Amino acid sequence: MAKIVECIPNFSEGTDEAILQALVEAATGVPGVMLLDWSADKSHNRSVFTLAGSPNAVAEAAFCLCKVASERIDLRNHTGEHPRMGATDVIPFVPLREMEVEDCVALSEELAERIWSELSIPVFLYESSARSPQRRNLAAIRKGQFEGMPQKLKQPEWAPDFGDPAPHPSAGVTAVGARMPLIAFNINLDTNRLDIANAIAKSIRGSSGGYSHCKAIGVMLEERGIAQVSMNMVDFEQTPLYRVFEAVRFEAARWGVRILGSEVIGLTPVKALADCAAYYLQLEDFDYSSQVLEQHLD
Amino acid sequence: MAKIVECIPNFSEGTDEAILQALVEAATGVPGVMLLDWSADKSHNRSVFTLAGSPNAVAEAAFCLCKVASERIDLRNHTGEHPRMGATDVIPFVPLREMEVEDCVALSEELAERIWSELSIPVFLYESSARSPQRRNLAAIRKGQFEGMPQKLKQPEWAPDFGDPAPHPSAGVTAVGARMPLIAFNINLDTNRLDIANAIAKSIRGSSGGYSHCKAIGVMLEERGIAQVSMNMVDFEQTPLYRVFEAVRFEAARWGVRILGSEVIGLTPVKALADCAAYYLQLEDFDYSSQVLEQHLD
Repeated sequence: MAKIVECIPNFSEGTDEAILQALVEAATGVPGVMLLDWSADKSHNRSVFTLAGSPNAVAEAAFCLCKVASERIDLRNHTGEHPRMGATDVIPFVPLREMEVEDCVALSEELAERIWSELSIPVFLYESSARSPQRRNLAAIRKGQFEGMPQKLKQPEWAPDFGDPAPHPSAGVTAVGARMPLIAFNINLDTNRLDIANAIAKSIRGSSGGYSHCKAIGVMLEERGIAQVSMNMVDFEQTPLYRVFEAVRFEAARWGVRILGSEVIGLTPVKALADCAAYYLQLEDFDYSSQVLEQHLD
Repeated sequence: MAKIVECIPNFSEGTDEAILQALVEAATGVPGVMLLDWSADKSHNRSVFTLAGSPNAVAEAAFCLCKVASERIDLRNHTGEHPRMGATDVIPFVPLREMEVEDCVALSEELAERIWSELSIPVFLYESSARSPQRRNLAAIRKGQFEGMPQKLKQPEWAPDFGDPAPHPSAGVTAVGARMPLIAFNINLDTNRLDIANAIAKSIRGSSGGYSHCKAIGVMLEERGIAQVSMNMVDFEQTPLYRVFEAVRFEAARWGVRILGSEVIGLTPVKALADCAAYYLQLEDFDYSSQVLEQHLD
């Protein structure tokens, strides 16, 4: 079975069709790389590409994209609603098949080194690639944005992980890192009380003392007249879906509220579901890598 | 995503190394076909090959194997514990990716036609490919074995689906068919009473009035001192694993017996597990083909 990595680079350009086309060409120009999706947002003035393929090919495509972005995008003329600090703003790598996050960390470090040495753009390592805890969070790195980077990089605690402590004049600064695939997982409650959904969300999310790899808020589904616990599961191996599902069930019981159902928005790695089956079926000694048939097909 | 079919041909040869080597060469000689596994049993005097790949390539490999078997194996000199009726005894096709059982039925019909027209071996279609209910079961077709086939094929109700009503002199008769992947799924009980496991097995298996696509018996796990419901799930889409798991749970409750755990022996298609997760997480509107990330990677 071949290694497959996903890469979701974000660029500070969402309007200029010629530049977007040049980025698409860069994304599709490397053999072994699939462009799964791309989208551009005019008000954010930002575009997001989703690539997948063999690790070296995807890293090469990410570099080509970064190079095109540095040649075509000038942050000195850039406005948009979304915070940004570079022409290529951020490049996350996600392990999909036969890879661990650690492999993506290595890939991110190689790419970061190359972006500095060949394009003269300073790079921060973030998320699982971060070399200090305060650099895990992208928002903390990006604070001050493009315009604030010349001052920020002079501070010793914000010296880039690769490159000189000064941004590229037009392409700014880029963040590169590794993270687990994110799963958007929502649980619907048989109540119309948003305060209950919010209290449950607070009890399970890492930032309020709950599960470390779960982000959660309460939201109202107005058309159904019910409240929902809306979650981002940022590491389904450390915090599996069944665990927050059962936690929401017992927290909701305090108010006599039951779970109506749940939903996955967009994509999920199939292993996140298989892990839940292994829990509920009480599977003994199940080995995903050797017992799942599909693992044996190229 | 590419179509992938599995094929598990069985041959009436388990001892002669030269013949087994010739079969391995035939199995590996077609581009696009992976030989996932093969094994030979001396007392059964039988070998089993597991191939996977694109449908046409796998059918070609199955034909090449059948041809080699017809040239090298002479049933007139064959003895072994396992019942058999042909040099190539049986060829099942199993849909793995982007295929339905119906696609495998079409594949089995094409191969059956070719085995008769090019090798002069009469062929029965069985399981999902069967053209009458009494031909679904391989054991019913094979009854009488190689030695009984000349008489059997003369009976109008046992005329082959392809070919004349007389076996090939040395290669006998072959069965070709399509079936779903089989999952060996066992549930362990916190009791040492085999009679309870047997009663539960009887309540859930299709042959006793239970779930149509579940075969089940009670067995003792002597080393653990517990009884087990041992199952073959022959169509996990029609009879999902969670359904028999919950049925075993409520049947066992009659004796105050609980489920200790379960086990999958060997391989399972990952969708069988994802279907269980969707049940237990109460997923609303989950679409496996579009929402599972791996479905988008070829």
